[in-house]
Amino acid sequence: MYREKIKVLDCTIRDGGLINNHDFDHRFVKEVYKAISASGVDYMEMGYKNSKKLFSTEEYGAWKLCDDEEIKKITDGVESNTKISIMVDVGRVDIDDVLPASESPVGMIRTAAYVKDIDKAIFMVNHFAEKGYETTINIMAISRDQGVELDEALHQIEEESKVMAVYIVDSFGALYQEPVELLVKQFKSILKTREVGFHGHNHQQLAFGNTIEAIIHGANYLDGTVYGLGRAAGNCPLELLIGFLKNQKFDIRPILDLISKEFIPLREKIEWGYIIPYAIAGMMNEHPRAAMALRNSDKKENYREFYESLKSANLDLA
Amino acid sequence: MYREKIKVLDCTIRDGGLINNHDFDHRFVKEVYKAISASGVDYMEMGYKNSKKLFSTEEYGAWKLCDDEEIKKITDGVESNTKISIMVDVGRVDIDDVLPASESPVGMIRTAAYVKDIDKAIFMVNHFAEKGYETTINIMAISRDQGVELDEALHQIEEESKVMAVYIVDSFGALYQEPVELLVKQFKSILKTREVGFHGHNHQQLAFGNTIEAIIHGANYLDGTVYGLGRAAGNCPLELLIGFLKNQKFDIRPILDLISKEFIPLREKIEWGYIIPYAIAGMMNEHPRAAMALRNSDKKENYREFYESLKSANLDLA
Repeated sequence: MYREKIKVLDCTIRDGGLINNHDFDHRFVKEVYKAISASGVDYMEMGYKNSKKLFSTEEYGAWKLCDDEEIKKITDGVESNTKISIMVDVGRVDIDDVLPASESPVGMIRTAAYVKDIDKAIFMVNHFAEKGYETTINIMAISRDQGVELDEALHQIEEESKVMAVYIVDSFGALYQEPVELLVKQFKSILKTREVGFHGHNHQQLAFGNTIEAIIHGANYLDGTVYGLGRAAGNCPLELLIGFLKNQKFDIRPILDLISKEFIPLREKIEWGYIIPYAIAGMMNEHPRAAMALRNSDKKENYREFYESLKSANLDLA
Repeated sequence: MYREKIKVLDCTIRDGGLINNHDFDHRFVKEVYKAISASGVDYMEMGYKNSKKLFSTEEYGAWKLCDDEEIKKITDGVESNTKISIMVDVGRVDIDDVLPASESPVGMIRTAAYVKDIDKAIFMVNHFAEKGYETTINIMAISRDQGVELDEALHQIEEESKVMAVYIVDSFGALYQEPVELLVKQFKSILKTREVGFHGHNHQQLAFGNTIEAIIHGANYLDGTVYGLGRAAGNCPLELLIGFLKNQKFDIRPILDLISKEFIPLREKIEWGYIIPYAIAGMMNEHPRAAMALRNSDKKENYREFYESLKSANLDLA
């Protein structure tokens, strides 16, 4: 698959940071940045920009706050055409902390939002766009938030926002190919002047397949992470995505080296990937929260009990 | 997805046997059989029926020969509606060793063949069908064997054979969704009176997604293995497939128990799953042989060198 408009964003450090309180050391992040840059990947996302009033660096690593000065320690001295992205959550960022793009190492700000918060997301995005940033809105938990509210949110984005791209985020790893096809078509039919993006989660081993599905139907902004690192089951493996895309600008080899040297050892220290409780959560269209708690308990391999508990909770809703 | 005609075949012991010379002990195989039976899965494949002149039980486990007496040790005393399947390779079975179906615990014989061996496969299949077995032809390595020869082979099967279903086998884990769609459509357009099956390999984490794709376009015979066990990267995880299918006859819970009790410990002893050299082989549409050799060497994590070696071998063909 080659399409010139396709842009790949690596969010290894941002989504992976959800496992370890965003506490990757600078050496590791710099190795990732060097490899991502050498691979020709378009964007690398470092973490979340959160208000210092809400989170302290005593409890969290640097990538929970994403100070420009911390980012410069990574980017300085590395030859790169990769743009830096950060993510913000609605209600957790002091927008006045964000310097004009011309004074910052950051090139793109992605605003994560639920459908119900689209008003606030549009306000933020327009603010960042006026400061010179590329912007996206990443609509979370979309496997639960479809229907007329989503339609209205997309119309509002198209009419009122300065956003460049809008992402479908399968937070629960619950989407199969047919819903992905329908969502991309819905997004494209309303967002006529914007790009559509896709961010998959790998609970059911479908993050890569669903990303291909999104590409087939016209999504041009694609997220991946090195070796699929990310919360719970992780994300679309960047190396598979690069292997699939035939764009000459990408080179898989620096990513292969990075996995050999950094991610095989990392996998001994933190857990992500195909793990049955996450698969069960995905099948049931549930937040992986309960599965993550299970994996930190002495019942971590007790799959049947976990399945029954999710199932019976879902039966008491009539 | 619910479609009454869908049949699921578990080939955990058969495809998993390719990792350990088909040497699963009877206790383990019986546990798998009990769980598969309790889950309502339609077929369970035990292994290969090979000529005793070619392979000895000194070198291989029982599931390389699949004697009826060995199979009865597994099935005897277990309440089950699951039919037993065995696989045969063209040129490796003494067809006179195969008793009439009425005298055997086996209900289905699947013949694995390359496109070039379809003549022989049709002869074998017709022989087995006359003995009362359900039959399939599983066309291996289809990512390399497309074009006019495949078309001719399918016409020949439709016109000359008594086969029930014909499988698309993505031996190299190289297919993406679009080729799967095209192949299923091609098979269905020629095999008007037969069912189409799909057997995926998981080198690029696409075995489950491709199986869904095959279902969407009309394949009704679907292979999976418990926890994805199988040679190299393994197969479509049966538990994900059962989670996706909405057929009332299936129950995922016995499979979840089986994974907890048997497959988590097994994974400590033998290797399968998402491993970068298998992913590279899949991307390059190569047999996993070289990747398997790498994993048994002291260069097992040296991905770049492996990538370069496959790539340069593929460049010297002009």
